[in-house]
Formats: sequence, C-alpha cells, structure tokens
Amino acid sequence: MERPRHQGMAKNTYMRWRLPLVCLLWEVAMIVLFGVFVRFSPEADAHWEEEKQEMNLTSDMENDFYFRYPSFQDVHVMIFVGFGFLMTFLKRYGFGAVGFNFLLAAFGIQWALLMQGWFHSFKSGKILIGVENLINADFCVGSVCIAFGAILGKTSPIQLLVMTLFQVTLFAVNEYILLNLLHVKDAGGSMTIHTFGAYFGLTVTRILYRPNLEQSKDKQGSVYHSDLFAMIGTLYLWMYWPSFNSAISDHGDAQHRAAINTYCSLAACVLTTMAFSSMLQKKGKLDMVHIQNATLAGGVAVGTSAEMMLTPYGSLIVGFICGIVSTVGYVYLTPFLESRLHIQDTCGIHNLHAMPGLIGGIVGAITAAAATEDVYGKEGFIKAFDFTGAYQTRTPSVQGGFQAAGIVVSLLMAFAGGAIVGAILKLPIWGDAAAENCFEDDIYWEVPEDEESDAYHMHNPDKPASP
Amino acid sequence: MERPRHQGMAKNTYMRWRLPLVCLLWEVAMIVLFGVFVRFSPEADAHWEEEKQEMNLTSDMENDFYFRYPSFQDVHVMIFVGFGFLMTFLKRYGFGAVGFNFLLAAFGIQWALLMQGWFHSFKSGKILIGVENLINADFCVGSVCIAFGAILGKTSPIQLLVMTLFQVTLFAVNEYILLNLLHVKDAGGSMTIHTFGAYFGLTVTRILYRPNLEQSKDKQGSVYHSDLFAMIGTLYLWMYWPSFNSAISDHGDAQHRAAINTYCSLAACVLTTMAFSSMLQKKGKLDMVHIQNATLAGGVAVGTSAEMMLTPYGSLIVGFICGIVSTVGYVYLTPFLESRLHIQDTCGIHNLHAMPGLIGGIVGAITAAAATEDVYGKEGFIKAFDFTGAYQTRTPSVQGGFQAAGIVVSLLMAFAGGAIVGAILKLPIWGDAAAENCFEDDIYWEVPEDEESDAYHMHNPDKPASP
Amino acid sequence: MERPRHQGMAKNTYMRWRLPLVCLLWEVAMIVLFGVFVRFSPEADAHWEEEKQEMNLTSDMENDFYFRYPSFQDVHVMIFVGFGFLMTFLKRYGFGAVGFNFLLAAFGIQWALLMQGWFHSFKSGKILIGVENLINADFCVGSVCIAFGAILGKTSPIQLLVMTLFQVTLFAVNEYILLNLLHVKDAGGSMTIHTFGAYFGLTVTRILYRPNLEQSKDKQGSVYHSDLFAMIGTLYLWMYWPSFNSAISDHGDAQHRAAINTYCSLAACVLTTMAFSSMLQKKGKLDMVHIQNATLAGGVAVGTSAEMMLTPYGSLIVGFICGIVSTVGYVYLTPFLESRLHIQDTCGIHNLHAMPGLIGGIVGAITAAAATEDVYGKEGFIKAFDFTGAYQTRTPSVQGGFQAAGIVVSLLMAFAGGAIVGAILKLPIWGDAAAENCFEDDIYWEVPEDEESDAYHMHNPDKPASP
Repeated sequence: MERPRHQGMAKNTYMRWRLPLVCLLWEVAMIVLFGVFVRFSPEADAHWEEEKQEMNLTSDMENDFYFRYPSFQDVHVMIFVGFGFLMTFLKRYGFGAVGFNFLLAAFGIQWALLMQGWFHSFKSGKILIGVENLINADFCVGSVCIAFGAILGKTSPIQLLVMTLFQVTLFAVNEYILLNLLHVKDAGGSMTIHTFGAYFGLTVTRILYRPNLEQSKDKQGSVYHSDLFAMIGTLYLWMYWPSFNSAISDHGDAQHRAAINTYCSLAACVLTTMAFSSMLQKKGKLDMVHIQNATLAGGVAVGTSAEMMLTPYGSLIVGFICGIVSTVGYVYLTPFLESRLHIQDTCGIHNLHAMPGLIGGIVGAITAAAATEDVYGKEGFIKAFDFTGAYQTRTPSVQGGFQAAGIVVSLLMAFAGGAIVGAILKLPIWGDAAAENCFEDDIYWEVPEDEESDAYHMHNPDKPASP
Repeated sequence: MERPRHQGMAKNTYMRWRLPLVCLLWEVAMIVLFGVFVRFSPEADAHWEEEKQEMNLTSDMENDFYFRYPSFQDVHVMIFVGFGFLMTFLKRYGFGAVGFNFLLAAFGIQWALLMQGWFHSFKSGKILIGVENLINADFCVGSVCIAFGAILGKTSPIQLLVMTLFQVTLFAVNEYILLNLLHVKDAGGSMTIHTFGAYFGLTVTRILYRPNLEQSKDKQGSVYHSDLFAMIGTLYLWMYWPSFNSAISDHGDAQHRAAINTYCSLAACVLTTMAFSSMLQKKGKLDMVHIQNATLAGGVAVGTSAEMMLTPYGSLIVGFICGIVSTVGYVYLTPFLESRLHIQDTCGIHNLHAMPGLIGGIVGAITAAAATEDVYGKEGFIKAFDFTGAYQTRTPSVQGGFQAAGIVVSLLMAFAGGAIVGAILKLPIWGDAAAENCFEDDIYWEVPEDEESDAYHMHNPDKPASP
Repeated sequence: MERPRHQGMAKNTYMRWRLPLVCLLWEVAMIVLFGVFVRFSPEADAHWEEEKQEMNLTSDMENDFYFRYPSFQDVHVMIFVGFGFLMTFLKRYGFGAVGFNFLLAAFGIQWALLMQGWFHSFKSGKILIGVENLINADFCVGSVCIAFGAILGKTSPIQLLVMTLFQVTLFAVNEYILLNLLHVKDAGGSMTIHTFGAYFGLTVTRILYRPNLEQSKDKQGSVYHSDLFAMIGTLYLWMYWPSFNSAISDHGDAQHRAAINTYCSLAACVLTTMAFSSMLQKKGKLDMVHIQNATLAGGVAVGTSAEMMLTPYGSLIVGFICGIVSTVGYVYLTPFLESRLHIQDTCGIHNLHAMPGLIGGIVGAITAAAATEDVYGKEGFIKAFDFTGAYQTRTPSVQGGFQAAGIVVSLLMAFAGGAIVGAILKLPIWGDAAAENCFEDDIYWEVPEDEESDAYHMHNPDKPASP
C-alpha cells in the first residue's frame, strides 16, 4: 500500500529539464522538416477537383479516403488504446503504460511520416501524404509499442523517445529493403512490424539487463482492476486486428479477404489459448496473462498471408498453433529467457510478437510459394503479388524464397539495431530508475493518494504504521 | 475482502483436463469442417478481378466490404467489449464476465459461420463467406451472450461452451424458419436474437435453479469501479446499436434509415429510464443497474422495424415505452421471477432483452402491416419487404401476420431448446461451482492478491482476522 | 472512506418527483414535435429508389450515409464515452460524470435535431433528417458536454437538463448566424462548439459561484484508477478527433485533408503538453490532469481550419502552441480564475476548450484570409469557401474578416446566454447539493458499498469509526 517515496535513490530520475528539452527540440525539428518536405497527396489537396476530372473519376467515393479511413481509425485505436491499455496490467504502472505509450506514439507517427515518406511517397522534392501514410505511420509506431512491452517499467520517458527515434528509422530502412528491394508482401507486418519490433525490443532489454530486478518484484504483478483495464487493451487489439491486416491491402477483394482470414485466425487462437492456459496450470485455472496476450497471437501470425488466398481453414490452423505456442511460451520460455539468457521481457513480447511473427513470416512464404493461377485467377494472381514490371517473370516459388529472405533481413536488422540502440540507452544520462523503483509510477508521475490509503490513515490517525 | 479459498467444496470445479479437451477437440472439428466446407465468397476471392468485369462493375467500391465493414466492426465491438464489459458489474466476477464471454463468442462465431452458412450461403457444396457472414455470425453469438447474462456467475466455462454449441445450432434453425420459410423481416434481430436468446437463457436458468444461491448473495452486488467498467459495456452497446440494426439491411436508404430510427429510439429510452429509476426508488436516487441496462431496451425494440418506415417519432415512442417497461421490470419483475418462478436472472435479461424483444417483434409486425405503396414508393415497397418471386402477391397485412408468427416460433424454439439444453447442462459432469462459490472468479481464474488486501495484511502482519 | 450520508443537509436534493417529471414531460414534447416536424431525408426514405433514378445515380454508394457514417460513429463515441469518461477523474463522481453526461446528451441530441433542423433542414414544413443531421446534433451536444465540464459535481441532473435545453437553443441560433448570415466556415466547430460552449459554461459557473466549495475539496481530486478511467475518455477524444473535424466537410479531398491536419496537430500537442507538464512542476513529474486534457487542445484549435489548406506543418505549429497554452493554463490560470474571478472550473475547460477555441477561430480567419487560387486551384478555391451565389465575389481577406466576426459573435452569445441561463439555474428549485456534498455521487445515485469499505468494517465489526 505504502508506495516508496524515495525518488531515485542511487539514480537521478529528475526529468524537469531533460524531458522538456527533448520534447520541445524534437517537435521543433518535426515542424521544420514537415515545413520543408511534407505536403498533401493529390487526393487530400484542394486541387483534387481538377485531378478528378483529369482522371475521369465520376465520384468522390473513388478518393482513397473512403477505402481506408475506417480501417485507419481502427488501427489508430489499436496503437493508442490497444497497446496502451494492454500494458496497464501492472498494479502501479498504469500511468506509465498509457502515458508513455501515448508520448512515444505521438512522436513516432510524425517521424514515421517523414522516414517512410522519404522512402515511399517522395515526389519532386516533397513527401505527399494521404490516409495510407497515416496508417503506415501508425504501423511503424506499432513496432515501437511492441518493443516498449519488453522494457515496460524499467526505462525513463527520455529513453523511450530515443528508442523511438532510432527504431522508427530502422523500421523504415528495413521496410524499404523488404517491400522495395526484395519485393516482399507483408501487408499486416508479420515481418516488418512484429518480428522486427519484438526482436529489436528483446535485444534492447537484454542489453539493459538489470541483475537486481527482483527488488521490485512485488510491483511486477497485477491487481484485480488493473487486469480488467488490460482486457480493454486486449479486446480492442483483438477486435480491430482484421482492420490492421487489411488496412493497406489492395482495394476490393484483397482487403475483404484479409479481414476474413484474420477474423478466423483470431477466433481459433482464443480456444487453444484457453485450453493451454488451463492445462499448464496445476490447479487448472485460467491465467489472465495468457488471455490478455496469447489470444492475439493469431492476428500476428497471419500478418503476411492474410491478404493472400490463405483460406478460412488455413487461418484457423495458424490461429490454433499460435495460441498454443504463445501460451506455452508464457509458461516455460519467459522464465527461461530471464534466468538463463538474462532477457527480462515485462510483457512477454517474445510470446506474443516474436514467435508468432516468425510463424507469420514463414506462413506467408509458404502461402506465396504455393500460389497458383488456378487459385487466384490470371489477373488476381498478378495483382496479388504485384508481378508486374521488373517482377513480371517472378514465380511463386521464387517469391516464397524472397519472403523467407525478408524474415532473415528483419531479424538481422532487429538484432543489430537493438544492440546499438540498447548500448545508447545504457548511457547513464537518460534518467532511468533504480531497480527497486521499477514498475512504479511514482518516479515520473504525480500520483494521487488512494482512497484505500486514506482509509488506512483514517484508521490510525495518530500512528504512522502498525497498530 | 478475504475471498473463499475452498475450490469446489461439494462440487468438483477442477477444469484442468475437461476444459482443454473440449476446447481442443472442438477447434479441431472446426478446422476439419472449415476445410471441407468454407471458402471465400466471390467478393473476397482473388478471382474477383474477373468477376468484376463480368458484372460490369467499374469500381472496387461496389464490393460489399465497403458497404458493411464499418458496421461489422461496430457489431464486433458490441459482442466482445459491449456484452463482455456490461457483465463486469459484479464485484468479483469481472474476469469471468469478460473472459468467458470472449471464449464462448470466439467459439460461437466459428460454429455460426458453419450453421448459418449451410442454411444461407451454401453453393455447390461450399459455404462462401464474406463480410455479411461475419456480421451474421456475430449476431448469432449475440443471442448466446444474452443467454449468458441470465446464468452469469453460476456456470462453468464448459457449460457455456456446451450451451453455445446448442444455442447457435437452434438459432440457425429458428432464423432459417423465420427468414426463409416465413419470409419475415428482422434485420436487427428483435425476434431471432433478442426474443429467442433471452427466453432461451431464462429457460436454461430456470432449469438450473439453485435454491441456496443466497449463500453467495454478498458477491451478487457491484463495487464502485465495477459499475464504471460496466458502463463501458453499456455505452458501446448504446452508441453502436444503430450499426447493429442497420448492418445487414439493404444497401442505401434502408441502412441509412435503420441507423436513424435506432438512434432516435435509444435517445428517448435514456430519458424514461432515468425518470423511472428515480421515481421507483424511495429516496429518488438513480440506480446504476437501470442505467446500465434499461437504456438499451430502445435498441432491442426497434430491431425488426428500424429498416422500415417506422419514422423518427415512431422510434421515439418505442424507446419511450421500453425505457419504462424495462426499468419497471428491474424493480418489480426480477424479484418476482426469482422468488415465485425460480428464475434466477443475474443480469436481468428478461427486462433488457426478453420484453423489449417481444415489443420489437410486435412493433415490426404492426409497422409491416401498416406499410403502403404511398409511404414507401412503388419500388421501395417491393424492395423493403422483398415482395418478389414467390412473395410477389403478399400484402402488408399478410406480412404482418407472418411477422407475428415469427414471434411465436421464436418463443417456442426458445422454450423447447432451453429446456433440453438446460437439462443437458444439469448433468453433474460440467464442473459448475457450489452455491456459496458462485459469482466468484477465484474458482476458475488465477486471481491476483489485491492491493487493498495487502494493506489489510500489512496492518495485522501477525494476526489472521480481527484485532 | 466513509462517505457522507446526509442527503441534502441545508438543501433539498430529493429528485424523486422533479427529475421524473422533467424527463417524462420533455420526452413527450419531443415525441409531439418529432411527430409534427421530423421526417426522413430523401436519402434515408424508402422513396430513394426513385430518387436515385431521377438523379441518375448508378450506385447506392452515392448515398451520403457511406460518406459520413463511419465518422458519425466516431463522433458519437467522443460525445458519450469521450466526454463521459474524461470526467470520471474525480474519485467519487464517476457515476455522475458518465451518467449525467449520458442523460443530457441523450436529451440534447433530440432537441438539437429539431432546433438545427428548423434552421437548416426545413423543407415544406418538415425537417428532413439524414446522417449529417445526426452528426450535427452530436456536435451541438458536444458544446453542452464542454459546459458541463465547468460545473461538474456542483449541479443537479435537473439543472443539467435545463442548461441543455437553453444551450442547445442558443447554439443553434449562434450557428445559424455564423454559417448562414456571416457565411463563415467552421466544420470542426472551433467557434460554434468550443468557444461558444466553453465561455457559456464558464459564465454559468461564475454565476453559480460557491464560496464554500473548499468544504468538499477532499473529493475534488482523483484516485489512481479514476485517472485511468479518465484516460479512456482522453484517448477516444484524441484518436477520433480527426473524424470530428472532417465529419461534415465536403466529400472527397476536404474530408481527407481535415483528417490529416487534425492528426498532425494532435500529435504535436502531446509533445509540448508533456514538456510543459514536467517543466512547470518542481519535481519535474508529469501531471495526469495535463495529459488527460491539454493533449486534446490541438484538436480544438484546428477545428475551423482543418478542412482548409492549413498544411501538415501548419497543423504541427498550431498543435505545438496549444499544448503549451493549455498546460500553462492549468498550472497558472485555473487557480487565478478561481481565486480572483470566482470562476470555479472543475475540469479546466478554459484551458482545453476556451483558449484553444479562440486560437482555432483566429487560425481559421488567418488561413481563410491567406487563401489563394494558386494554393487551392480555381475550382477548389470556390468549393472550399463556397464562394457561390450571393458570395461569388467575396475575397479571402473579406472572408477572413467575417471569420473573425464569427469569433466575436460566439463570445457575445456565450456571455449573454450563459448569464441568463446561470441566473435561471441559480433559482433554489432545482435540487443542487450543498457545498460540502459536491463532487459526491451519493447524493443522486445509489452507491454500492465498496469492497475496501467492507474490509474496513470487517476490521472493526463492533466499533463505528476509530479504534
């Protein structure tokens, strides 16, 4: 009940000048860079009236806004409420979970608009942004939110901003290599978002290893209501994942198909998660940690293949497997990673994003390699894999090989990038808390006195602690 | 504060092998059945490029995905967050409310895709699914979530899965009789979802009557924050209900109209709920139970008629009446049903779904019977009631009669089905808890030690209970 | 812990007959007025089949429903969950925050449909409503929710209903003056919603000044979990604000652009809010009050200009400034307003809505005045400012002048209206609570005994209060 009041005993967690300085300088930098580079895409520019006539469009409905905006809003909710609340499960780190996620994502989307813009939307010296850029920026930040899960409760807001700056940059490079150089398909980001984000975060947390973390072990758990707050995050991620995986797919059947495959995979995943959560516990009781996390693995694992002809039963199989893999991971692998490999993974992103991300990459490679003109139709086949221009002669099996290469590249980028960024974050200038103060909002937040605590004090108005 | 730690005193609530077995076997069955039967609808299939040309569609926008996906996502939120959180009002059953709702809905939507698919989307040996199937599956599961409300806190997860299996099956049969054989309109499911689901659940809970339930009476109430969690559920149901009632209506004016009618009915319902909540209480204070539930009755009661020319003022009248009926039900009818008829209805679904569902069916019948070509326009009239083919000569009054017949059929299916399923659930093999352990998460869930409880123990470190 | 049990010591807060009477009479009035005046717009009417042919529309997609319904649902969530939960930050006023917001908004949207309908959708004696009317009704009620923030915890539900009745009326008049007489653009409502709503509410709370409010000061703070509930409100407002500002813009590029500008402004606002929240606190810690509120100021401040060619970097600048202004306001201005000007502003709407609303009006005037055919394109220029008919010859600088006049009119309407309505609300017949009972749900709600309180009593089963 009595929260520790020592603000940074061994360490200096005083944020007063450091955090404002970083936030303000970086935001000014964003304004300057946006001023120089960012303009509206033709579909968001007031010139569109003329554009429409030139392109012979008869309806405003043809504006990409109407194809993607509802999905964009769902993705937006996933990033801010989904990831934010998923991480509120800790009993004393709800402000940090929601608040720091808010901070890093708000910065990250701006930087991502620039980085991804330079790579993908750069025309005559300007980055032209529309709704698809907003979705991609949210996606990019999603990978940072994932990495945040590994270091949750152990880092200062400045460290998170520094990590965001570098991770978004590396994300954009990796994405460029995969999508443009390897011509890989990854609409839901099994590789670019989940595999990259998770292994990046795991590498960072390995480098930031805290040997004395058991000093704050009592705060690493949840309380009853914090678990319910976390379920808000879980459910919004789970419900909107079909929008996530279909948000940037081709118009028409591809978006439609991606949503259905994801819906199916997620549904199957819930059942195997529940099954293994009960089975792996001596008393046979369900564990909220599994329900909050492993139920989502099915969405991660169809991230690459959802827009392909994975078929509903294929999706069920993927979800079935991932619920098991992820739950088993929480029970056996997370303790092992911590004790043996010194990887302290607060939210268990290895189980929710890393392994399912890898599975997703592999399923994508196999699904691509197995594609035939019979299954996709002649035009559908070309459209689905964009076998046009320089890629006109690429065959499905070659595509499968490139997809597999995409996994390897993402892993290498994650390990190398995570190592470098981890080393930077280890510098003793960022204001992270001492081990005994981890998982505690009181370090960086004004925390209200709780009612219960009032009751406690009311009870003994004159005595400090014991009766 | 001190939660009972006796796991299943008289009864064996050990889930370790039973729950996993059911989940895994059933999910395998889903995979096999999906493998044999389920494929993408033409609009979600990669062949759509060719289909589009054959159908002379000039825009991807004509894909049904864009007409229905935003509504689908709203409905999805209603099922998982809406129903899930609505039931978190109990002080110690939040995990069960959200978690079991998650489990049964995730299973139910898969089985519903199959059951409804065989009846409605079966073509040359395959079930072809698109976004409308996803909505219908969510709808079908909605009726199970309703029934869950009656038995909330008193059943094991296995019982819930068994009930889901049977109820989804019966729902699909009932729906087929109404929509196909009786040619009844029921886009928002006043009859198929609410009347059927509620009376089914009430029959089940009647058969599962627990004479000693007052042993767990202290846990049947709410605490301050659990009531706020429940309001999340309430508000999402309330806000998205216009999407629910318009989700599968005809494209264009019908969807538009259904949303407006539902919006109006729900608004009126809030005012009469507040009025009667205050009026029926001696101290004149508002009761959260009413606000959480009766405010939604207006959405239930225009489920059949919302897509018809009910008109905004007609909707207000329906909402006005239902707020009253539902609130009065909570105050007078629920205690009566429990004490006299031995119907223990945890969430009061009789007030929120059963009575408003019946009203909705009746309002639908009247609205249909009162339809004229003048009000609908010649083409609109035919389109609204689908008076084509074999039904070319059906008149509004005949349609009204069939609508009324639909209510009766739904009731009969609910009573008969509920009785059989209730009897099955009464078998002593499903692991339900003893009466004194009802409404308690600790039986089926790993529950974290609460902060307050820590405080309590801190206070008396060496003494077990009283000072 | 022990909540005050004296219901209305000096004052009579008994609601039993007054609240029901107001709710029922007003709802009956709504039914009568809707019956006389409200019908479906052509796009929601069953005659649309014929309409479509007359208008040569080839697709149901051309129905305005599909252009606006997703945005409408987002706005709906903002009004009911966004505003409702934002105000749950108070430790003992969560029911009142969510519940009274629900009540006033449900009444307000009906009355707004009528008031706005008479001004804007009145054709041959009928108000024809479609999805755009629903959005506008939600917008109008948004201004009441804002004003509610100033008087939160200090008023009875009847006072709130009375205020809603008058404020909606005045809103509609002010909106008519701005949009129709001054031909001002204000799609996101910086002037009509935020400036008007906030200064109206501030005037009301000034007139209702309670000199002894410090008697309930202990209840004016938050507890840990109430701050997390409030973050649900914050995040939904933040995420869906792009939908708010684009919901009623012209189809196509204008909606697209409004969403992008708002997204950018809000992102920048988060960073400067965090910076100043830390900087202005001695210990450098972040304050939840700022994160919950000031992060939203960026959305308010682009309410007028978002649909114009503000450009992404322009939006960043606006957001940058507003995060600072709003946070500084919370730290320095709110205490000043309370102590010197006797303006007791519970939620700090002056910082979140009033000042950013003014900034938004000014930014809109400047952006309009700076518009050129070069930037907008010839047709885009005319379309963006609707320089047609009587306004064919209006120039951008004249438009800028009228925009500025719109701010002044909104302010005058707010002050005058707020003064009158405040005076009415001061009458001693509405059942508001005594100063020591403010910010306390127990006055108007049945409040459950809390678990913690149980624990407390368990502890001392025979003694009433002190050990």
